[in-house]
Amino acid sequence: MPLFNSHVEKLSPPPVPAVAAWGRAYDGKQGPLIDLSQAVPGYPAHPDMLRLLGETASSLAFTGYGPIEGETKLRQAYAEHFSEVYGASLGMSNIHITSGCNQAFICAAMAVAGPGDTVLMTEPFYFNQETTLTMMGVRTAFVPCAAENGFLPDLLDIEKAITGGVRALALVSPNNPTGAIYPPSLLEAVFRLCRDKGIWLILDETYRDFLPAAGQMPHGLFQIEGWEEVLISLYSFSKSFCIPGHRLGAIAASEVAVSQVAKVMDNLQICAPRSAQAAVAQALPLLADWREENRQEIGRRAEALKAVMRGLNDWKLDAIGAYFAFVRHPFAGRGSAEVAEQLAKRAGISCIPGAYFGEGQQDYLRFAFANADAPTIALLEERLKNFSLS
Amino acid sequence: MPLFNSHVEKLSPPPVPAVAAWGRAYDGKQGPLIDLSQAVPGYPAHPDMLRLLGETASSLAFTGYGPIEGETKLRQAYAEHFSEVYGASLGMSNIHITSGCNQAFICAAMAVAGPGDTVLMTEPFYFNQETTLTMMGVRTAFVPCAAENGFLPDLLDIEKAITGGVRALALVSPNNPTGAIYPPSLLEAVFRLCRDKGIWLILDETYRDFLPAAGQMPHGLFQIEGWEEVLISLYSFSKSFCIPGHRLGAIAASEVAVSQVAKVMDNLQICAPRSAQAAVAQALPLLADWREENRQEIGRRAEALKAVMRGLNDWKLDAIGAYFAFVRHPFAGRGSAEVAEQLAKRAGISCIPGAYFGEGQQDYLRFAFANADAPTIALLEERLKNFSLS
Ligand SMILES: Cc1ncc(COP(=O)(O)O)c(C=O)c1O
Ligand SMILES: Cc1ncc(COP(=O)(O)O)c(C=O)c1O
Repeated sequence: MPLFNSHVEKLSPPPVPAVAAWGRAYDGKQGPLIDLSQAVPGYPAHPDMLRLLGETASSLAFTGYGPIEGETKLRQAYAEHFSEVYGASLGMSNIHITSGCNQAFICAAMAVAGPGDTVLMTEPFYFNQETTLTMMGVRTAFVPCAAENGFLPDLLDIEKAITGGVRALALVSPNNPTGAIYPPSLLEAVFRLCRDKGIWLILDETYRDFLPAAGQMPHGLFQIEGWEEVLISLYSFSKSFCIPGHRLGAIAASEVAVSQVAKVMDNLQICAPRSAQAAVAQALPLLADWREENRQEIGRRAEALKAVMRGLNDWKLDAIGAYFAFVRHPFAGRGSAEVAEQLAKRAGISCIPGAYFGEGQQDYLRFAFANADAPTIALLEERLKNFSLS
Repeated sequence: MPLFNSHVEKLSPPPVPAVAAWGRAYDGKQGPLIDLSQAVPGYPAHPDMLRLLGETASSLAFTGYGPIEGETKLRQAYAEHFSEVYGASLGMSNIHITSGCNQAFICAAMAVAGPGDTVLMTEPFYFNQETTLTMMGVRTAFVPCAAENGFLPDLLDIEKAITGGVRALALVSPNNPTGAIYPPSLLEAVFRLCRDKGIWLILDETYRDFLPAAGQMPHGLFQIEGWEEVLISLYSFSKSFCIPGHRLGAIAASEVAVSQVAKVMDNLQICAPRSAQAAVAQALPLLADWREENRQEIGRRAEALKAVMRGLNDWKLDAIGAYFAFVRHPFAGRGSAEVAEQLAKRAGISCIPGAYFGEGQQDYLRFAFANADAPTIALLEERLKNFSLS
C-alpha cells in the first residue's frame, strides 16, 4: 500500500469514540450509565430551535451554495450579539461562520501558522487543538498550568515560551478540560504580551455562555484599541443552542484575518451548512432567556458536583468551572486511561482520561458535569465511594 | 500586525465570488444574466428532498454529535448505491461522509500527503484542489492535458511525472473544468501505473451521475482486486441532489484509509451535519428516477450548447462533456479574465476564466452549461456573435 501522511498516521484514533466504547461495555450493575464524557448539554434543544431548523431546511432558499463567510443574517445577528456581550462594536465583516468550533480553530490556525511554525498552547490542552496542529505539520509548545495556580498559566512562563518560531498562543477560556475561567485581568496581560511580541492570540470561547455570574462579561479585550492586530476569538453554537449535530461555529477577528480565513474555508468546504445558519440567526435573539436559564441550570449542576466531592475523601476536585471539572483520582501511579476505562465499565461513569489532555495529566479525569442533571450527579458519590481499581 | 501563514496569504481570493461580482455589474441591456459560472444545477431540489430535510432537521434525533465517519444509515445506503453503480461490493466501512466534496478532497489529500510531499494533478485543474494543496504546504506538479487529446492526460506524461516525492495523483472525471470524460480503459491504465509506482489515485467523481449514456458505469476500477491499495474515490451530493447548501460529500476507500480520514475529519469538524445525512439516506433510493431525468435534461443542454457553437465561427467548443464545456474564445493574446469580465458586464454571460484553472489556459472559458436550460443556452448565440472585446 502507498504511504499515508506520517503527520496523520502518528495521531491516535479520535478519543471520544474510544471512550464511548468503554461506556457501551458497562454491565449496568450500578444503574444507568452516567455519561460525563463528550461535552454535550444534557437537556434538549428548544422546540423553537427545532421548528426554525425544520423551516429553513425545507426551504429552497438555502439549497444553493452560500457566501463563504456565512449567511449575512447570521453574521449580522452574531456581530450584534457579540458586541453586546463584550461591550464592543464589531460588524459582520469581523465575523466568519464555520462548521463548528473545531473548524473555527483549524481555520484560524491555518490562517496564521504553516508547517514548521510554532503555536503555543497551555497544558492540559483541548486534544483536538493539539492533533489539528500536529496534523498540519505545525509545531506545538506548551505552557504548563498547575493545579496550585487554578490551572491558569503564568505570564512569565508564557513570555519565556514565546521564542522565534512562535506565531500564536492558543488559549481556551472557560477551559476545556479544567473548567478554569481566565480572569479578565490575566487575559488582558496575556493580550498585551502577545501584542508586544507580535504574535496572535487565538482564544477559544466555546463555553463563554456558561460563566457563573449573570451577564458577566468574559473579558474586555474587544474594547482595547487595536484588538484586531492581536485577537482571534472562536465560538461554538453547539453547546449554547444544544445543536452540535448541525455543526455551527464562528470566528470574530479583523477584516483582514477574516479574508484569510475565507480562503481557508473555501478549500475546506466552501461554506458552512446554510439552513442551520438561517435558523440560528433567528434563534439568537429569540432564545436569550432560555440560554440564561440553562446557564443557571449548569450552575446548579456545578454545585451538585461540589457537594458530591465534599463527601469523598480520596477524590479531589482540583478545578471546576463552566461545564467541566478536573478531578484528581486516588490511584496515583496508575494511568488515567486505565482508571477511566474501569470507571466506565464497572461503575457506569463515563469520563475522559486526563492523559488525553497531556501526558502530565495522568492523575486526572475530566468530568463534563454539564451533561448530567443534579439528581444524576448526586449518584456519583456512592459509585465513586464504592469504586476500587482492579 | 503579526504574520499570516504565507501558504495562505499567497493564495488569491476565492475565484467564484470575484466572478459573481462581474455578473452583478452587468447592465442588463442584453436581457437577464445567463449564469454559467459556479457549477449548480439550474433546476430546484425535489420536493421530497426538501420534505425529508425539513423532517430530519426538526427532529431531536440529529441534534447531538454523530459518528465521525457519518450516519450509519447514509454510509449503508451509499455503499449499496455505490456498489450498484460500479458493479462492486463495498460496505459501510469503506465509506466516509464529509461536508461536501471539497472537504472530501482535503481529507483524502491530508491522509496521504504532508508538507513537502508532492501531489500530481492534471492541468487544467479544479482550482480548489490546487489551492488546497498549496495551503497545506504540499507541492503540486502538473500533467498537461491538451485540447488535441480531448483534454485527457497521456499515460507516458503521467509516468514521467511520478518522481520521488509524489504521493498521489489527483484526477477529476468527468472533468472540471473541461467536461472531459475519462474512458474506463484510460482510468484502468492509470490505476495500474499508480499501483506499480506505489502512489495513491485520488479520483474526484463529483459529476459521475451526468454521464451521457443511461446506466453507464464510470469505470471498472472497483472490480479490480486490490483496489483498496490504490484508489480513493470522491463524490458530492451537491450536484446530483441539488443541495450544495447542505454540504454533503463522500469518500470511498479502504477501511484503513477511512480510519486515517476519520482522524483528519475529527479535527476538521468532528462530523458532517447530521440531519441532511439522514435525509439523503432516504432520498438516495427514492429519487433515482428523478436523477435519471436530470441526467437526460443535462444531455439536452449539452446538445443546445453544441448547436449554439456550430453557429459561431470564431468561438470553438474544444471540449464538452458532463456539466461543463471548455470554450476557446476568439481573442487570443488577451487574458481570459479580461474576456470573462467583459462578457459578464456587457453581454450578460457569466463564466469562469480559463486561467483560473491554470496559467496555460488563457485562451479558454469554462461554461457550466448545466446551470441553464436549453432555451436560455440558445440565447448565447446572439450574445456571443455580437460581442467584441473593448
Ligand atoms: C474548547 C472547545 N473548542 C471547540 C469545540 C468543538 O465544538 P464544535 O462542536 O463547535 O465543533 C469543543 C467541543 O467540545 C471544545 O470543548
Ligand atoms: C470537481 C469538483 N470537486 C468538488 C467540488 C465541490 O463540491 P461540494 O459542493 O460537494 O463541496 C466541485 C464543485 O464545483 C467540483 O467541481
